[in-house]
Amino acid sequence: MIKVGIVGGTGYTGVELLRLLAVHPDVELTAITSRKEDGLPVADMFPSLRGRVNIAFSSPDKADLSKCDVVFFATPHGVAMAQAPELLKAGVKVIDLAADFRIKDKAVFEKWYKIDHTCPELLEEAAYGLAELNRDNIKNARLVANPGCYPTTMQLGYYPLLKNALVDAGSLIADCKSGVSGAGRKAEIATLFSESSDNFKAYGVAGHRHTPETSAQLQKFTADKVGLIFTPHLVPMIRGMHSTLYARLTKEISNEDLQKLFEDQYKDSAFVDVMPFGSHPETRSTRGSNMLRLALHRPDNGNTVIVLVVQDNLVKGASGQAVQCMNLMFGLEETTGLTQIALLP
Amino acid sequence: MIKVGIVGGTGYTGVELLRLLAVHPDVELTAITSRKEDGLPVADMFPSLRGRVNIAFSSPDKADLSKCDVVFFATPHGVAMAQAPELLKAGVKVIDLAADFRIKDKAVFEKWYKIDHTCPELLEEAAYGLAELNRDNIKNARLVANPGCYPTTMQLGYYPLLKNALVDAGSLIADCKSGVSGAGRKAEIATLFSESSDNFKAYGVAGHRHTPETSAQLQKFTADKVGLIFTPHLVPMIRGMHSTLYARLTKEISNEDLQKLFEDQYKDSAFVDVMPFGSHPETRSTRGSNMLRLALHRPDNGNTVIVLVVQDNLVKGASGQAVQCMNLMFGLEETTGLTQIALLP
Amino acid sequence: MIKVGIVGGTGYTGVELLRLLAVHPDVELTAITSRKEDGLPVADMFPSLRGRVNIAFSSPDKADLSKCDVVFFATPHGVAMAQAPELLKAGVKVIDLAADFRIKDKAVFEKWYKIDHTCPELLEEAAYGLAELNRDNIKNARLVANPGCYPTTMQLGYYPLLKNALVDAGSLIADCKSGVSGAGRKAEIATLFSESSDNFKAYGVAGHRHTPETSAQLQKFTADKVGLIFTPHLVPMIRGMHSTLYARLTKEISNEDLQKLFEDQYKDSAFVDVMPFGSHPETRSTRGSNMLRLALHRPDNGNTVIVLVVQDNLVKGASGQAVQCMNLMFGLEETTGLTQIALLP
Amino acid sequence: MIKVGIVGGTGYTGVELLRLLAVHPDVELTAITSRKEDGLPVADMFPSLRGRVNIAFSSPDKADLSKCDVVFFATPHGVAMAQAPELLKAGVKVIDLAADFRIKDKAVFEKWYKIDHTCPELLEEAAYGLAELNRDNIKNARLVANPGCYPTTMQLGYYPLLKNALVDAGSLIADCKSGVSGAGRKAEIATLFSESSDNFKAYGVAGHRHTPETSAQLQKFTADKVGLIFTPHLVPMIRGMHSTLYARLTKEISNEDLQKLFEDQYKDSAFVDVMPFGSHPETRSTRGSNMLRLALHRPDNGNTVIVLVVQDNLVKGASGQAVQCMNLMFGLEETTGLTQIALLP
Repeated sequence: MIKVGIVGGTGYTGVELLRLLAVHPDVELTAITSRKEDGLPVADMFPSLRGRVNIAFSSPDKADLSKCDVVFFATPHGVAMAQAPELLKAGVKVIDLAADFRIKDKAVFEKWYKIDHTCPELLEEAAYGLAELNRDNIKNARLVANPGCYPTTMQLGYYPLLKNALVDAGSLIADCKSGVSGAGRKAEIATLFSESSDNFKAYGVAGHRHTPETSAQLQKFTADKVGLIFTPHLVPMIRGMHSTLYARLTKEISNEDLQKLFEDQYKDSAFVDVMPFGSHPETRSTRGSNMLRLALHRPDNGNTVIVLVVQDNLVKGASGQAVQCMNLMFGLEETTGLTQIALLP
Repeated sequence: MIKVGIVGGTGYTGVELLRLLAVHPDVELTAITSRKEDGLPVADMFPSLRGRVNIAFSSPDKADLSKCDVVFFATPHGVAMAQAPELLKAGVKVIDLAADFRIKDKAVFEKWYKIDHTCPELLEEAAYGLAELNRDNIKNARLVANPGCYPTTMQLGYYPLLKNALVDAGSLIADCKSGVSGAGRKAEIATLFSESSDNFKAYGVAGHRHTPETSAQLQKFTADKVGLIFTPHLVPMIRGMHSTLYARLTKEISNEDLQKLFEDQYKDSAFVDVMPFGSHPETRSTRGSNMLRLALHRPDNGNTVIVLVVQDNLVKGASGQAVQCMNLMFGLEETTGLTQIALLP
Repeated sequence: MIKVGIVGGTGYTGVELLRLLAVHPDVELTAITSRKEDGLPVADMFPSLRGRVNIAFSSPDKADLSKCDVVFFATPHGVAMAQAPELLKAGVKVIDLAADFRIKDKAVFEKWYKIDHTCPELLEEAAYGLAELNRDNIKNARLVANPGCYPTTMQLGYYPLLKNALVDAGSLIADCKSGVSGAGRKAEIATLFSESSDNFKAYGVAGHRHTPETSAQLQKFTADKVGLIFTPHLVPMIRGMHSTLYARLTKEISNEDLQKLFEDQYKDSAFVDVMPFGSHPETRSTRGSNMLRLALHRPDNGNTVIVLVVQDNLVKGASGQAVQCMNLMFGLEETTGLTQIALLP
Repeated sequence: MIKVGIVGGTGYTGVELLRLLAVHPDVELTAITSRKEDGLPVADMFPSLRGRVNIAFSSPDKADLSKCDVVFFATPHGVAMAQAPELLKAGVKVIDLAADFRIKDKAVFEKWYKIDHTCPELLEEAAYGLAELNRDNIKNARLVANPGCYPTTMQLGYYPLLKNALVDAGSLIADCKSGVSGAGRKAEIATLFSESSDNFKAYGVAGHRHTPETSAQLQKFTADKVGLIFTPHLVPMIRGMHSTLYARLTKEISNEDLQKLFEDQYKDSAFVDVMPFGSHPETRSTRGSNMLRLALHRPDNGNTVIVLVVQDNLVKGASGQAVQCMNLMFGLEETTGLTQIALLP
């Protein structure tokens, strides 16, 4: 059994990790920390876990995380970088669900996250945890940077197009929509039910932290200079993410070949479902599951290709993806413990 | 024109007052205070008011409320009692949307609201602002205690039954449901979209502040001892309140006579709509309007009568009712500025 | 492996059966019928099942259900009674999720469901599928009548009180609230998003088919005459059911003893969670899981006891409960394939 | 008083017309037709109108629409073209909320709407009812084609850019999102609460009827060939529309000048609110009102300009816009009866 610790288990990615790990056949939940909730049984905060998760939160100083085999950080940005070095030294693997190790360029990180990076020496080592495109690195990693939710959809949607040099890398437009849980479990007016229900809006159009992360990763897929417009929107739903990706074709290619390109790319990826050409994937078809679904469109058979991508932002977009990485890091089947079927309706 | 001031305009009852008063033909919005938002144009916080409300928040010390004809308190409990005496002395009428003057018994107030009452001398004078049952008092009042949202539905629903001694006053059960806006515009986890959407629960079953207010008012309608079980629930909708009121008939009465009793009682009340016997009123039929609708049921023609009552908790349950009181206090038609039709769908 | 057939798989209880059975370790999905969708792969209608359920709908005449070990009827009322006799004769067990075999009294059934009962001879034999109260009968049954969703909550909530003769059986009031999926997957205006979102209403107050079912079952628990007022309401959420059950205590009993009564009653029932006295269970704590949670309240320590009960109407209230019965009928652990943790948030 | 008739008042644009016209100071509601609901009081179908609209539906043959001054068609496509000629002959003005007269090119209309156009002779005469860009034509029109909801946002958002030849007209991308009421009040599975709540998806990406309408109108603003990619999405909210419009700048222009261009363009348009540069308009800021709000963005000060546009699809996107046209056609102030403030929260 893999001994698992979770730092910061009171947020949505934390409780989602607990939901997944509690039924994972190879995991033993060993410790979950929260400075504020020390001593509180986890199931008292999240009644969905009553009878299923029997440990209590403990303050970071009491929890001996160095006895774990792996520690997940479901924390705000900045926490993992402070604790990772010591854990790694103790032989503990680390998976960070925040952004601390996602961006290799220290300066870019510090510009966007407004904090100093305190262990830049680990930036190079950290494996970027997008299994579908980086499986081998993850398998051998001690430290994994779990991708952002939006970046996951953009990378998996654009990869086959960029890799095969089919589109103008300089004029990508990603119009993305997320459910409200993406904003986290924080007491804030903007995400109150009465503020975000029956409402729709864009946010962060002037600049969102997922832009530099995505651009840097997309740049790896192509020799051309990547130019990405990324526009996030808030949808009045709890879970779910829908990215509408636009790209301009620069080469002749039939729709059949386009479709085949995607199907071939992801034929061995259990969690990427390439739907029939012209389909309209729904976010709810992934609710609670680790599946990402995508479908291709080409209006009027013109030179614009549209990739529609959906996922559950808390599963494939966060905690499910982290468990997927853990499976790889410990030599398990990639799908172990991640076979939940989406909840529909 | 009536010069109107609002204390505490950053909450939901505040912005709802602004929506109603901005189109009220006899009102001039003079001042709106907020300690925290001094100088901020109201329309910057509530873009729905852009081009319609052109004043800015001002800090309480700058706003000269004594020049107003009437001041609404859309504040947490305790604020109105601190400022009302001075305003009244200056000849300004006061309408409190909070609970400071709703409960005549100082000890009961202090037990439930956990604060000292600092001007008990005004408790007796304050008119209880339920126009349908207390119209004359309100007309002559300097100080009005606007009723709570739940208590409004319970009083208007139970009144004809208690007044006519038709039911057992000692075994009333009110199973009530409210939209989330009733919790106010406060940064709290429990009312986040991701917490309260797609969810339903009871709350405060052990004791809710609207119980003593309602019991005291209901007691005025009957010589028998009132016994009330009040169970509030939270509904994943923004606005709307639905009270399902149960009472045991103690006298023979036909359904036709029951229905007639309610129709006669409210025939001159523009904002109470007695629907046909056996109807199912929907909260949305009152969304954004000052209407309260109710309908009677009697399962199997037995001895239980059910009154279904709906209203918009922010309008008839709060700000609309307050404007209705203002109209009466200033000799206007009771319906002035309150003829908005509900938004359906 | 148990060979399973499903009749009528295009509704919500049908797709929910598929979600549960597709991961059930002892089940082989053999046939799923739909007259209208003959030949359509199930996953084309429900994309959440893509890659997980690979069979197609077949018309009833083509599907050889007699080769199944058990057949679930996820159909409108009246279908199971037409096909059950033949299947039973062929040695196939039958679980009906509709009402055909829930009510033992043919006349009562026909009055409420407005159809003739065509195989009254099976009414007596059919086991009522509420495992917590009828486990032994179910184990030995060939034919199970799966309980209605509302009746499940009312029976499990009232049972310990009635069984122990603690309350007035003649004045029970059940104020119940259901998510919209309870209305099924039918093209109807009343359950459109634009009609039922941001709205709350009661329905069927004059008489609901779950009243006679529940009354007949409750009557088994007590020698006194049961009198039940049941008021259903529609909540703008997809899944979830919340019953607020009122009863009048007729005996002295401490809150501790009340609580203990419930805990003892359900200590061996894996799917009933008795929460601490005074808790407020949330429907979302059961979303997607087969758990039913309940909590006791006693306002002012008076003579009214309130039982708050929540469940997922499609799982414990329908398909999960049916699988639970199947497990018992085939000698499996009752919880097999039913250990999904609720999706929160 | 203007005598108004409505054909087809049982849908969402119909009830919205009723909400607006019932409080319009210059209107007398004369007739409302429905073949199916002949004799039913309007308020029995829409309880929000109880006490406010006292007429009943009448079958088309009974209603003498020729006595009206103006008739609104809130009907499916094809109805207005059948009845408009006769009404116009009788001197009645006609406003069609459907698409019958939106597209001047008969062949294009017939291709997209799959019906023959039966009065092509009126196509040229019909004024396109987008007051902000076509005010004079509307004032003098007998027949108005009320614009589609999506096209309203796209035209008002792109107009200043195209008119001033600032952007590449051939590569416009409009990523648009609509509330569910846009699908109408029809019994269909896809728009059930349980299907469209807590869900997000694109639809009609391969081709939507609003594309040819919009392209034809946009083409009027520029000499360059318009190329428009239009991608509609369904948002789990009742009302509201958000269009995210992308265009590539082809000329140097400062953000200040861009902003000024829009402000100048709409300074006399009471229903277009140009928000500060970089704002994020919310759909709810227009809920129930005839306002359309827009804001400009320019990521990284690059060559992509984004226009965010919001409106209530049933008001400015349909019935409010129709009343706005009526006001112009009868020489009234354009804003008469249309000054409702948006319902927020």
